[in-house]
Amino acid sequence: MDQQAFQDSYPEELSYCYGCGKLNEHGLQIKSMWDGNDGDETIAMYTPKPYHTAIPGYVYGGLIASLIDCHGTGTAAAAAYRKAGRALGSEPTFRFVTASLQIDFLSPTPLGVPLSLRGKILELKERKVIVDITLSADGVICARGKVVAVQMPDSMMPKRK
Amino acid sequence: MDQQAFQDSYPEELSYCYGCGKLNEHGLQIKSMWDGNDGDETIAMYTPKPYHTAIPGYVYGGLIASLIDCHGTGTAAAAAYRKAGRALGSEPTFRFVTASLQIDFLSPTPLGVPLSLRGKILELKERKVIVDITLSADGVICARGKVVAVQMPDSMMPKRK
Repeated sequence: MDQQAFQDSYPEELSYCYGCGKLNEHGLQIKSMWDGNDGDETIAMYTPKPYHTAIPGYVYGGLIASLIDCHGTGTAAAAAYRKAGRALGSEPTFRFVTASLQIDFLSPTPLGVPLSLRGKILELKERKVIVDITLSADGVICARGKVVAVQMPDSMMPKRK
Repeated sequence: MDQQAFQDSYPEELSYCYGCGKLNEHGLQIKSMWDGNDGDETIAMYTPKPYHTAIPGYVYGGLIASLIDCHGTGTAAAAAYRKAGRALGSEPTFRFVTASLQIDFLSPTPLGVPLSLRGKILELKERKVIVDITLSADGVICARGKVVAVQMPDSMMPKRK
């Protein structure tokens, strides 16, 4: 079984991200995983809170950007582990940060329903992974994103307690 | 004087945006304004909360995307009012939504200091405005964004209470 959420495998010192850190109690705690054990796409679900609105009735674009961002870096890390033939979360840690984010808002995203994210690897190099992500509501693709994720520079690594 | 925050001029039914709505008590309440009465650039300041972190010590990219997004649509609305020679907030309302968002994260953004946003109009058409935005911390540009903002479709307009 490989259905652990990628973000739950991050080491403690890298688990405070507002978007996806399991230890950030104020954050979104996004969880990403492979779509099936042998699939090459990744999925995540998130139901926005009522206050995550833009125009009333629609989801705030900054939240959509956040979901795409964290699903993208999580997918990048998982893909790097898989390519290396290593278990998720094994050390040394693969942890990616976002170099660039491109989002096209294709259709207004309705508030009040679960949003479904799907990630697909476009490019997988040792230090750079490009992920295509769609965000859907009620089966309709509302936004599409491209995340260019790069391995976190050593200078950003927090000291382990 | 024209130093009112753009978002404070939005009508009540359009003031619930998580990023910039003055009536969203859970939100970021971003405020954008012209840089001086005759300037053609816009500014906003925002100090992230301690929990708006990515890697500890650095600001979460999704928050950066949110700031750029709302500063972009706010700038688009203000520029449309100015071009029409109308006062901010006068009716019929100019309200823009984001069609696409491109962000390059140039340097890790330190947490704990005020972030400064600066917007510049790249293109100004009746229904579409393109805004270039930089986000700086301690005088260093950490992220650069391009927001393509389009006038909100009538179908998204909430009913006035």
